[in-house]
Amino acid sequence: MLTKAPHLFDDATRGTAGDSRWQGQTSQDYWAFVGPFGGVTAATMLRALIDHPQRSGDPLALTVNFCALIAEGDFDLDVRLVKANRSTQHWSVELTQGGSDVTTLATAVFAERRPSWSHQPALFPPARPFEQIQPYTKIAAPWIRQYDFRFVEGDPDFSGAKNPPASAYSKLWICDRVPRKIDTLSLMSMSDAFFGRVFHARRELVSFGTVSLTTYFHTDTEELAAEDISRVLAVADAKIFHKSYGDQSGELWSPSGRLLATTTQIAYFKA
Amino acid sequence: MLTKAPHLFDDATRGTAGDSRWQGQTSQDYWAFVGPFGGVTAATMLRALIDHPQRSGDPLALTVNFCALIAEGDFDLDVRLVKANRSTQHWSVELTQGGSDVTTLATAVFAERRPSWSHQPALFPPARPFEQIQPYTKIAAPWIRQYDFRFVEGDPDFSGAKNPPASAYSKLWICDRVPRKIDTLSLMSMSDAFFGRVFHARRELVSFGTVSLTTYFHTDTEELAAEDISRVLAVADAKIFHKSYGDQSGELWSPSGRLLATTTQIAYFKA
Repeated sequence: MLTKAPHLFDDATRGTAGDSRWQGQTSQDYWAFVGPFGGVTAATMLRALIDHPQRSGDPLALTVNFCALIAEGDFDLDVRLVKANRSTQHWSVELTQGGSDVTTLATAVFAERRPSWSHQPALFPPARPFEQIQPYTKIAAPWIRQYDFRFVEGDPDFSGAKNPPASAYSKLWICDRVPRKIDTLSLMSMSDAFFGRVFHARRELVSFGTVSLTTYFHTDTEELAAEDISRVLAVADAKIFHKSYGDQSGELWSPSGRLLATTTQIAYFKA
Repeated sequence: MLTKAPHLFDDATRGTAGDSRWQGQTSQDYWAFVGPFGGVTAATMLRALIDHPQRSGDPLALTVNFCALIAEGDFDLDVRLVKANRSTQHWSVELTQGGSDVTTLATAVFAERRPSWSHQPALFPPARPFEQIQPYTKIAAPWIRQYDFRFVEGDPDFSGAKNPPASAYSKLWICDRVPRKIDTLSLMSMSDAFFGRVFHARRELVSFGTVSLTTYFHTDTEELAAEDISRVLAVADAKIFHKSYGDQSGELWSPSGRLLATTTQIAYFKA
């Protein structure tokens, strides 16, 4: 079922290795309204770290600050191992284009995850099966076409009826349109693949941009590979929209009921 | 009611200004078990940015990665304005001691917050009044003595009874022991002032350390000053503990029912 040839997502997130400076190109396949889809930018930065010869351990946390628009074309990633301990590594990554200002700034933590007491208080959200839900096909941005979104609850309603505000909560299956086995790169990208919560709450598309995104990974690479899945059940919600900024928090679940990643972001909106 | 003389917290978080390099000292008042309380370290880094001559706008997001233990004594803060736009600034701060490795790495976003549509879907948690609850006095670390914690729900039970795991949810009032008007610095510090969720879930103290902390601010400086408060109602919970790391998410509320800040962290534990 899963493709063996290089996947679009792998082409989009792959860079050319350097020691501290890597090169990459934006992907037309994952283009958003005015720049690259942020999830793929985040995954590209994470991929450079995962592929770095000095990397040890598994991704634990990644924060990405979107400082400025990334133009179509080439970019450089400046990668720095800020501090390494016995079981954790702290990295920073800066994305620049043509030697100009930083457009994207990320920090990451990698960790050797040792066996421990394990406990998952979060409840697996009940959901209709993926196969019983129609794919969402209404927004035409290229990156959205690379995913198969199937809304269990909170599907977007862009009717524009603003009062009272609609719920900002969504529950949906997310799968690569061309199925691809879920790894930490897909989790990173999917953690930014929710539609803006403000679109849901206001029932309309407005100017919107993620400013800062943080994702935590709750499995190691081996456990995630053993899940052997090509989709996640995802939930997202918002707590507040105020003075041009709103939050989002989300969860990405394995169909088997394991919490794989949690994510939070703050985003600009104009409304 | 509020002290006018310099507050302990202000002494603890104040640095000596430089252009890109600031100096500070750890505070015995806010010492934790093996190093400074992380919330005060985070507030110190935020304070250097707020006081920086190039800063414009209000704190929107701060992520702090705790890379290594900070020793008692002097430290340097290397502050860098990574990118400035019309209405946002992106900063990084690195804390070092004696020219050695980075012990703490932070990134911050400041923003000019323009009027917009405003909507707060999150519900203000019902709580007994502060005055009707006894202060928590059982843990003797110096930093804990600088706060007045009053548990509405989920007060720590360190009886050690591990099965079944207890709830990781807490609801509490947090106030400086010597009252101090709440500003973004106090919100930053208080967002790391929850006890480890693993202590609650396992009903015991275990080795614990925050690895990465992210806080979003949902008011601007002027609105927060107008609240004119010296305490917040705070809630925290966890979704998962697995392979030596666990998450935490929290909210800090004004007694008037405004959501002031949201926070998330991932922490190491040994259990």
